[in-house]
Amino acid sequence: MKILVTGSQGFIATNLIKQLVVCGHQIVGVDNMVSGSNNIIYTRHLCDHFNLDLSSSDCIPKLSSILDQVDTVIHLAANGNVVDSVSSPGENFNSNVVSTFNLLECIRNVGVKRIVFSSTGGALMGNTPPPVSEASVPMPISPYGSSKLSCEAYIRSFSHCYNFESIILRFGNVYGPFSSHKKGVINQWIRSILKNEPLVVYGDGNSSRDYIHVSDLCSGLINSLSYEFPLDSCCEVFHLSNSREITLNELADVLRSISTNPFVIQKFPVRVGEVANNFADTSKAKQLLRFMPSTSFDDGISELFEWIRQNEFSNHL
Amino acid sequence: MKILVTGSQGFIATNLIKQLVVCGHQIVGVDNMVSGSNNIIYTRHLCDHFNLDLSSSDCIPKLSSILDQVDTVIHLAANGNVVDSVSSPGENFNSNVVSTFNLLECIRNVGVKRIVFSSTGGALMGNTPPPVSEASVPMPISPYGSSKLSCEAYIRSFSHCYNFESIILRFGNVYGPFSSHKKGVINQWIRSILKNEPLVVYGDGNSSRDYIHVSDLCSGLINSLSYEFPLDSCCEVFHLSNSREITLNELADVLRSISTNPFVIQKFPVRVGEVANNFADTSKAKQLLRFMPSTSFDDGISELFEWIRQNEFSNHL
Repeated sequence: MKILVTGSQGFIATNLIKQLVVCGHQIVGVDNMVSGSNNIIYTRHLCDHFNLDLSSSDCIPKLSSILDQVDTVIHLAANGNVVDSVSSPGENFNSNVVSTFNLLECIRNVGVKRIVFSSTGGALMGNTPPPVSEASVPMPISPYGSSKLSCEAYIRSFSHCYNFESIILRFGNVYGPFSSHKKGVINQWIRSILKNEPLVVYGDGNSSRDYIHVSDLCSGLINSLSYEFPLDSCCEVFHLSNSREITLNELADVLRSISTNPFVIQKFPVRVGEVANNFADTSKAKQLLRFMPSTSFDDGISELFEWIRQNEFSNHL
Repeated sequence: MKILVTGSQGFIATNLIKQLVVCGHQIVGVDNMVSGSNNIIYTRHLCDHFNLDLSSSDCIPKLSSILDQVDTVIHLAANGNVVDSVSSPGENFNSNVVSTFNLLECIRNVGVKRIVFSSTGGALMGNTPPPVSEASVPMPISPYGSSKLSCEAYIRSFSHCYNFESIILRFGNVYGPFSSHKKGVINQWIRSILKNEPLVVYGDGNSSRDYIHVSDLCSGLINSLSYEFPLDSCCEVFHLSNSREITLNELADVLRSISTNPFVIQKFPVRVGEVANNFADTSKAKQLLRFMPSTSFDDGISELFEWIRQNEFSNHL
């Protein structure tokens, strides 16, 4: 397959491109180069990366010429931070909704066979009692969650009206290597431990997430490339996560068992827009995508701890 | 209450403003004046109408100064045509999603107590088997349906993050007077009968809608202005329609019983983006908004037939 990956210098894209190339796919990447990632050093020998801002209509001629060469689009480009979306909803709207709309307009005009979209399981559902699934009613409580629901809505109707296939994958909280530019709690806490700083918790530590290792996520995503749609269907949604709820307090326990550095925890009030508890029922992906995450949380966290130490703290050793 | 009505020269707004003024509310209107409506002649003595294009950021200073004077926003402004949204999704996106986002950004900065939003029951749900309700998972199949789901998503998260109340009303297919600029099937068919032209059907005539008379809809909307939210809730969704499925063939029968002009029906293929069948369960609105539509379909259609004859065909008499 010839595949366009958007957000090609991002955390998930970097892991994914390495797996896709092993599978024999030809990749081209686009990225707006604003995430602060230096991941291009890991993939520039594997594919071209074009500097394109999908939120600007200026991108359309170049994007159209790239789309003309591919079968499938894996759309990962996004502004993924919930807290930033609350302080700057307009930036998030442009990065996520306007960009996706521009991409879809190009796909409508040029034509591709399939788009695979990275949505979210947690932020989309708000404070719906978990487990959430494809049958749950989305009720986002952050502009970020709203942006992903908007993208899902447009991907669904565009694939229906303009004859292409779409797969919406609602990711759990993804962690793993090539995430040095990311600000998720696992990465921040590992950095704090390595800097002998307190771990910052917003709330009482009982808020939970459904963490999934990036290699497991990428395997599920790659399986979705060959998913065969039933007749009269052109859009399917799947939750990809571990179906396991892990609280911040449990995450702290795992880090305590890994690290030789002792640490203390500093508590602050809950932040607006963040959901309290989340995990997803992934039966549908297991059945239809042969999705089977296999990385244990303890092993994945140990590996990431080591990766961050080597890649972000080598001068400190 | 001091209320801003957006889309103030539209079909529903014209009926609504007349009812709101009777209830003693003070109204201000904004409209981009592109719908082709001449409804301002019916309400210009009741409120000011400002010419504002909400999809352009140029509107923000004036919009902010208007919002500063009101408690509540009733957001009706929209491009409401499913078929047009399929041919021009970008126009629909700007009119509906970008406009609503700009309005919400102004509300966030200026502050109002409540927004009431006109969503849709049918286009939002796509081909979900009816009856649909607030518990159904939205699956839009037209860009118009996607635009309304996007607006709902942003209204929900903005009211959560920035502390205002929001009521999302999913309308059935609304009909009634002051609709001379509208292109819905009821209006088109009445015009065709009055011009002795064939009635155009897309499909076999078994597609159905859940029609509601505009006066019943406006009563439900006005009730929602005084809805009291439970603690820890700031966003509620309600379906407002008749909970009655009426096929195109049944609509033709009603028109045949009203009109002295005989007519023939011309069939064309189903159009992309239009849902096949739709009606909604309105129990929630009945219980919590004391919503109780009372206009019989036959009476409402007879009244509209007469209204169109007098207002659009008086030169033909």
